[in-house]
Amino acid sequence: MKKLIQDKTHFLQDMLDGLKITNPNIDVIADTVVVRQHKKTSGVALVSGGGSGHEPAHAGYVGEGMLDAAVCGEVFTSPTPDKVLEAIKAVDNGDGVLLIVKNYAGDVMNFEMAKDMAAMEDIQVEMVVVGDDIAIDDVEKRRGVAGTVFVHKYAGYLSERGKKLTELKTEVEALIDQIRTIGMALTPPAVPTTGKYGFDIEESEMEIGIGIHGERGLERVPVEPVEQIVQRLIEQLKAEVASDELIVMVNGMGGTPLSELDIVTKYVALQLEQEGKTVKGWFVGDYMTSLDMQGFSLTFVPYDEHILSAFRAPTTSRFF
Amino acid sequence: MKKLIQDKTHFLQDMLDGLKITNPNIDVIADTVVVRQHKKTSGVALVSGGGSGHEPAHAGYVGEGMLDAAVCGEVFTSPTPDKVLEAIKAVDNGDGVLLIVKNYAGDVMNFEMAKDMAAMEDIQVEMVVVGDDIAIDDVEKRRGVAGTVFVHKYAGYLSERGKKLTELKTEVEALIDQIRTIGMALTPPAVPTTGKYGFDIEESEMEIGIGIHGERGLERVPVEPVEQIVQRLIEQLKAEVASDELIVMVNGMGGTPLSELDIVTKYVALQLEQEGKTVKGWFVGDYMTSLDMQGFSLTFVPYDEHILSAFRAPTTSRFF
Repeated sequence: MKKLIQDKTHFLQDMLDGLKITNPNIDVIADTVVVRQHKKTSGVALVSGGGSGHEPAHAGYVGEGMLDAAVCGEVFTSPTPDKVLEAIKAVDNGDGVLLIVKNYAGDVMNFEMAKDMAAMEDIQVEMVVVGDDIAIDDVEKRRGVAGTVFVHKYAGYLSERGKKLTELKTEVEALIDQIRTIGMALTPPAVPTTGKYGFDIEESEMEIGIGIHGERGLERVPVEPVEQIVQRLIEQLKAEVASDELIVMVNGMGGTPLSELDIVTKYVALQLEQEGKTVKGWFVGDYMTSLDMQGFSLTFVPYDEHILSAFRAPTTSRFF
Repeated sequence: MKKLIQDKTHFLQDMLDGLKITNPNIDVIADTVVVRQHKKTSGVALVSGGGSGHEPAHAGYVGEGMLDAAVCGEVFTSPTPDKVLEAIKAVDNGDGVLLIVKNYAGDVMNFEMAKDMAAMEDIQVEMVVVGDDIAIDDVEKRRGVAGTVFVHKYAGYLSERGKKLTELKTEVEALIDQIRTIGMALTPPAVPTTGKYGFDIEESEMEIGIGIHGERGLERVPVEPVEQIVQRLIEQLKAEVASDELIVMVNGMGGTPLSELDIVTKYVALQLEQEGKTVKGWFVGDYMTSLDMQGFSLTFVPYDEHILSAFRAPTTSRFF
């Protein structure tokens, strides 16, 4: 395994130092918590985070119109409750804090603990959990994947418009209920901190329904042309999203070249057209990655004018 | 070799179809020429291009503030003169056309031929050739690599400010004279159209001084921590760029995760600081790639307030 790193024991630190150099609008506090340099003086503050290895998620989304803080764990490892608490305390301005958490046992537990600790310090905190990955049948166990980035954007938009905490939480949860994602991979992620690959796979095979931490998929099949891959994913997504008008994200997994994401996009568009569905908004790029994995995920949101406006509203994050 | 493609014989077409879907401000004419949907009615028109496989270069840079057209050849293959001529004719508004060409024999020949053909149709055309890659000793033979994207941006800025063709060419050439780049790779690009890798390399080795078409580098050495890699590249760059104030691009090669580009950035910053040099502007991301190659290049431009303003000026391209 070859990596552009200095030392696997300070991968996260080095990465955040680098991010800070090119993003003058952020600060790194408590070693692993990325906050806006100019704290918001009013409005619900938004905190997300989780394990690293999904860049630009989540630290890249700290900025006006999106997150107030991102709590960064080590690669594929939840951040500890004390770091989440540091983030909450750093961003709270009295209007309360919303935690946006991907549905993984460790993340949910640690953010929940931080929420309880903050409550003891009289900070008003609510939490939403994103579980958009339909590769998992049991809805309660669905993992949070690329759709989480849409949640960041939507929550950021609502916060800027002055929504109060309770109302904002309700509206964000209404969006979360509608987001569905499924992913595939040609290669596993190569994890710098362990020196291991997420899974082993033959040169002739691909995984359908992968997670973003090197979790294997639902099924392993011979590599197919993009049209067939896209048909497989859309088949599953359309069983969950009935709308004929969609907002679609084609998310690269970190090692997928842009040329291939564009090719995927073409065949997604063709397939949806054949099925009489209209795409009202496209988002194509690396939003929620898994280190250097080659593959992509497809996210569907039923079209809604207000939601698409929110996704398209300005942000100072250069990654959305 | 696993790829997210439909058919290697229409890789380029599929990619451009996909790009068009998500970029409503462009049109694709003559199959492989990407132009702005709204033609500029005055000002020097800018045409670039070359082989594909370098996405977002060049088609992604068509937009206000950057290129008027990009002529896309097949993967790692020059576009033909007739396609370049189509681009010239499509964008010319009477104020003349500047061709921005990377220094490869095929590109230079084909763009030159198109220039001559356009002259016969009384279109005023000038051409500049970018050769920023210091891995090649002979200055005349230096290849055009990531620095070319800075040239697109600068030329776009000057054109929008109403510079006439001759003056614009002179100013762009003055910038080209100052741009220096060197790259490295951990892996070769996997070329979808041929099914071949750019070169073979051991799991323990890396290439210093690679090109962007799978050309091997100046030397092959055991993989090192990022600090040492960065020292090697800076050693060579500072022999060519004397300024103590710099504009720096850290360019991903297509398969490099953002986390690693951020780590590279940290060590570039540290090394330059140790040498008493100040970075006045950073550009970090995938600007000029080589399919899915893992690696990066480093570009130095001596700092100049006017040039940095041009680089930072707005553009509708979402890739710069």
